[in-house]
This record gives sequence, structure tokens and C-alpha cells, in this order.
Amino acid sequence: MSDAVVEALNGTPRAGDIAAAALPLPPAAVVGQPLSSVATPALVLDLDAFDENLERMAAAAAKHGVAVRPHAKAHKSVAIARAQLAAGAVGICCQKLSEAYPFARAGVANIHISNEFVGDDKVAMAVALAGHVTLSVCVDDVRQVAALGKAAGRAGVRIAVLPEVDVGQGRCGVATADALSGLVDAIDHYDALHFGGIQAYHGSAQHFAAWAERRDAARRAADQAAAYVTHLEARGVRSPVVTGGGTGTCEFDLASGVYTEIQPGSYVFLDQHYGSLEWRDEWRFRHGLFLAATVMSAARPGMIVCDAGLKSMAVDSGQPRFWSAQREGTPTYRGASDEHGVLDLASPAADGAAWLGEMLLLVPGHCDPTVNLHDQYVAVRHGRVEALWPIDARGMSR
Amino acid sequence: MSDAVVEALNGTPRAGDIAAAALPLPPAAVVGQPLSSVATPALVLDLDAFDENLERMAAAAAKHGVAVRPHAKAHKSVAIARAQLAAGAVGICCQKLSEAYPFARAGVANIHISNEFVGDDKVAMAVALAGHVTLSVCVDDVRQVAALGKAAGRAGVRIAVLPEVDVGQGRCGVATADALSGLVDAIDHYDALHFGGIQAYHGSAQHFAAWAERRDAARRAADQAAAYVTHLEARGVRSPVVTGGGTGTCEFDLASGVYTEIQPGSYVFLDQHYGSLEWRDEWRFRHGLFLAATVMSAARPGMIVCDAGLKSMAVDSGQPRFWSAQREGTPTYRGASDEHGVLDLASPAADGAAWLGEMLLLVPGHCDPTVNLHDQYVAVRHGRVEALWPIDARGMSR
Repeated sequence: MSDAVVEALNGTPRAGDIAAAALPLPPAAVVGQPLSSVATPALVLDLDAFDENLERMAAAAAKHGVAVRPHAKAHKSVAIARAQLAAGAVGICCQKLSEAYPFARAGVANIHISNEFVGDDKVAMAVALAGHVTLSVCVDDVRQVAALGKAAGRAGVRIAVLPEVDVGQGRCGVATADALSGLVDAIDHYDALHFGGIQAYHGSAQHFAAWAERRDAARRAADQAAAYVTHLEARGVRSPVVTGGGTGTCEFDLASGVYTEIQPGSYVFLDQHYGSLEWRDEWRFRHGLFLAATVMSAARPGMIVCDAGLKSMAVDSGQPRFWSAQREGTPTYRGASDEHGVLDLASPAADGAAWLGEMLLLVPGHCDPTVNLHDQYVAVRHGRVEALWPIDARGMSR
Repeated sequence: MSDAVVEALNGTPRAGDIAAAALPLPPAAVVGQPLSSVATPALVLDLDAFDENLERMAAAAAKHGVAVRPHAKAHKSVAIARAQLAAGAVGICCQKLSEAYPFARAGVANIHISNEFVGDDKVAMAVALAGHVTLSVCVDDVRQVAALGKAAGRAGVRIAVLPEVDVGQGRCGVATADALSGLVDAIDHYDALHFGGIQAYHGSAQHFAAWAERRDAARRAADQAAAYVTHLEARGVRSPVVTGGGTGTCEFDLASGVYTEIQPGSYVFLDQHYGSLEWRDEWRFRHGLFLAATVMSAARPGMIVCDAGLKSMAVDSGQPRFWSAQREGTPTYRGASDEHGVLDLASPAADGAAWLGEMLLLVPGHCDPTVNLHDQYVAVRHGRVEALWPIDARGMSR
């Protein structure tokens, strides 16, 4: 719960209220408090791991002379974006236009919408954003270009447009050089738009478990991106930016010689899914994001039940990993319902009674949609709350 | 985005802001607007279906003389709770203490926390709530009773305590008559607490696809609940309330002669998972909850991509069902990533280009965690926005 949200809830009277001021929602955590007494479920950020992940990515990118444009869809936090910019990022990516609003308001000056959008409401948001930040967007259809070009022209703003090319994901993006040329021509038709380069992102390649499989898929993606760049060069069109790549392939994208910038998101957190992949040691980021939960029922042998389920974390990429507890033991998170998580103890006959009230730390299966469930990070260093960072863009999917 | 949240976002300046007032987030929908022009992704409530679902449940319960205490974890909305109370509900259930706050503030006078909780912060919330509403809670451990009894006594509030008995779910709740007696004795020990009856909820039975399988599981659960009631009666303890049951088994729970009240939640919406179960005709609720999405990319044959993925709906109970579009055709939702949904067209060679910009309506796989991703319902009747209902308790999982 961010301060603004708590304020809105505590402060805004509504018809029918009988006791709004008399029933304030207590804060989930306060700065200086030990982690062990934070109210659960809570999304916990380990600042030491976070700092190390940031530095590791920045150093690797600097070595290759490639720009880092971290993806804010992973964290949705102005505080984290500022830390990334301080570490040398050239700007950020957002996946949705509304998601970019809190960042633009907070002074993030360079935002790339790494996604296509359609509709008057979306075009209006792009034009509004472009009045305040250096904005680039993706397209894969000339109709997207036309709608944006007309509206941007009327508003007197300039927007960089990056056609997306499909390099193996099979989702968005054009699949032929002719289609790419058609988009470049369409962009050229509008004074308010300019060709900003291409986006070549292979999302599924991020998640291949085997290191060599990711390497090969990243290589094929980079080769395809390079072919598109060459095709445009033959037409006299230079691509100032080739953007793409994520946490799972950045090792290869940085070394490719093709990408001018990478878009990693999850590296700041390393969720359980990413943690389960095969990594070379120097590329293994640290788990930085945890869900703090409390055992609230232990009535049956062999299992314990905690207060964190589907409304506290996303399970689309698998169950969370048990990380640590204040007491010894290593239960396994078996499954979630809305507000319950069931963990199996090592033995089916084990008495879980002593676990009642214990705080558990869990590594979420998939960080992005888990973060989107929460209103703040409880940022912790050495077991103490150092900061509360609002998840400013939570729920902003328009 | 509820008004309060939009206000908080638009109105609260923060350090580093350069253009907060100059960059307001446009509203996602306004009353009177046609559904077809609502900004997507949007959570849409079909008010005709909603009204019919409300009436159907109220009529069935009235016929059996059983109370309805709808579960607010499904909808998290004061407006919907008020509609349920107006239809005869005796109160509501909440699954978490913080979830109960917006309802208590809005004057919902009788709230049952259908779940166990542990920890000083949780006990403090229970005591605070009990200062304003008639509160009942669940327990399955004497330590929960002791902590609550002491704190409630100090605060001078009274709380009804319902031990939970396990009737087949195998999650929370005691599993023996002795353990139940121990809880009743513990409750009796504290003046501030009183025994309110028992909770006997079989969550997994709600989801068995075969009607007869649900019937049999509900029968076994009711038999076990009855045996616990009889055991207590033999000790001279009357159970004023036997609460449990959900959307999937309410037909049987109402007719059981055991339950004095039922706790259905999903019936107001009927999500895709519940819709896929086998129902007798008179018990088939209507789909009332939809996710409105827009096709924002159609660059490849055989498929289209919409703007609603994991951050707009929960997929833990399966993919959403394509319900309707403004144009003809019946694509199948294949899979979601964070902000994308991929739908397959009927033929792999079909050209999706004509779908670009179309609004799709999808029936979410699982309503509760889907609702928890959104800030408001766009409540629609006959294709027009009739109301915007805030999802007051979104994210309140403490």
C-alpha cells in the first residue's frame, strides 16, 4: 500500500461511511523496523542483491559499449528506475502507455514503449507523453503509424517509431523485409514521426533452460535483426537503434555486435523461474525479490499453511521456492489458493505446530506479475527495513 | 483505477515531478459511454447477468431457509456487497482482515473472517474491526484463540469465534472432535470471545467437474459437519451457526439440513472455470464478468494479439474463453505473457489484419485473482456504461 493509496483510503469519505477516520489501516511496515516483524504478505527487496545485480549488468554492458534500457514492466517503480538511471541506463522501456505515466511525471526523460498499440485512447496517451519526454514506440502495421502520425502532427510533438521485427518469438512484429520497408515508408510520410531503428525481441528465448539453447536462439535472432538492418541500409536507411534482448539472453545480445541497446527487466530481482535456468557463473544474478509470508495454520501433520496465495504472487511460471524461515527446515511450496499457500514438510508425519506464526521468505515464480499485485516494496538491508518504495505503475495496463 | 486512486496519482506531488498536473491519466471509462469505446484492458460487469445471479441465489436460499453470507474475496467491492445485502444477505465473508476494512468503513455491519490468522498485527486489526462491526473469525489452534482473547479483552470488544473443522479440503481446520472441544474450551476461557458455531468448508469440492461428484463430496462434508455439531451438543454446546459451502456446492449445501449459512462468492460472476463444470439447468449462473481487450497486433497469419495478458487476468485455473467481438469469428485464447494475449484464428492461414483494433470480450478463467488485478468494474447494461464501481479491497491481503 503506497502512502498515496493509504492516504486516499484513509482520507476520502464516501456515502455510507460510518467510521473512516476511526478505522485507519495500519501501515504494513515502517523504516527501521526489523524484517522479522513486517506485516505479511509483503513484497521484500533485498537491497544488497539488488545493488549487485544493477552493477553487474551495468558493468557488462559498459564492457561491450551497449546501452542498457531496463524494462520497467518488471518493477513498475520510480525508485528502481532512478537507481537504474544512476547506474548508467539511457532510459527505460514500458510495455504499456499508462505504465509510462508515473515515470514521465517523476522526470524519467527517455521512455521507449516496447509494444504496439491501437485505438484513439492509446494514441492520445502517446501524444500526451511525447509532450513531456523523449518517446519512442513500436509498430508492426501501417495503420498504427497513420493514426499516430496524424495525432502527433496535430499536437505538434515528435515521436521516434521503431518497427518491430519478429526474430523468433512469433508474436508481434513483421516477418518480411518488404513489410519492414512499408513501415519505414509510412513513418517517413509523417513529419511528426521519425524512424528510430528497429526492435528485435525474442521473448521465448529468454526462458530456455539450457545455456546453449539460449545462446543459439539469441544468435539466430541477432542474425535476423542484422539482415533487416542490412536490407534497410541497402535502401539508404540507417537504423540508429537496434533494441531487444532480456535477462535470459543479455550475455549473448551484448556480445552480438548487432544490438545497440538491451532491455533487461528481471535481472534486478531474479525470480525462481530465471533462477532455475542454466547460467555461467559470472552471469548468475542474485535472488533479490522475496515474498514474506506467515504460517497461519498448522493443524495437519506433514504440512503448514501460509498467508500468501494467488493474490500475493503469480504462479504462471511455477510455484515459489521456499528460501528461508526464522526456524530451521525446508518445506516445499505445494500449491496456492486465493489467500493460502500450502507447504509440505520434509516428512508426511512431521508435526508442523512449531511453525505456527513463523515468517517464511519465498522466491516468487515470476517476478513481473507478482510485483503487479503489490503496492510497495519493503526494501531491506541486513534484516532491517531501509525504505518503502511505491509500485507506482501497479495495475497500469492500458 | 478508482477515483480515489486516480486522485491520489493525479494530485499528489512527489520529489522530482516535472509535470504531474500537466500529465493527467485519462479516465478509462465514463458513465454513459458505449462499451465499444471503453479503454482496454477493462474489467466489465454485465449488470443484467449480475442481477439475475444475485436473485437466483437469494431465491434458492430463501426456499431452504438458509442464510447467504456472500464471500467478498470474489468481488472486493462495496457496491457489490451492498447489492448482496439488499438482496437479503445476512453479512459478508472476508478472507483477510485488511480486506474487511473498506467494507466496515462503508457500513457493512456483520463481517465473518473465514480464515485463520496469526500475529500481533493481525490480532490488532481484528480488535479494531470488532470495535465497529459484528465480527466473527475462524481458528484452528488454541494459540490463535489465546492471542485474540487477551487482546479483545484489553480492548473491551467482543468477537465471535468459529473453530474451523476440516471436512475434506485437507488445508486448514481441526480434524478430530477432541481438537474441536479443545478450541471450544479455549474460547470459553476468554470473556471477550464467544463460541459462534463452526466453519466447515470444502474448497476443492467446489471445483469437481461432475455434478454427482460435487454432490457426493458435499454430502460427506455435511455429514462430517453434522457429526461435529452432535459431538458438541453431547457436551452441552449448541452451534448457532454452521457456515461453509461455495458456488460449486451451494445446491447441495442449501438442501443439506446441516448448514445454517452458505458463503458463495463466484456466483455473481461465473468465471470460465465454474462455467465449464456440469450443472443442472436451474443452477447454472450466467457469465457476468468479462475482460474487454483490444487486438493490437495482427502481423502473422492464423493469429491475433490482444492487449490483455497476465497483468489483466489470472490464468491459474486456465486460459480465458473468447466470448465475443464486434466482428464475427471465434478465435481461441492460446496463451498470455505479461501484457499480451495470443489468440488463434479458426484457420492457421487466416489473415488477421481485419481484426486490428477490434474489441474482444473474454471470460476470465478464475474470477477472484482476476478481480484483484483491477481498480474498478466497468458496469454495463445493454452495451452502455451504467456505473464505475471501485474494487475497494484490491490488494488487501494482510
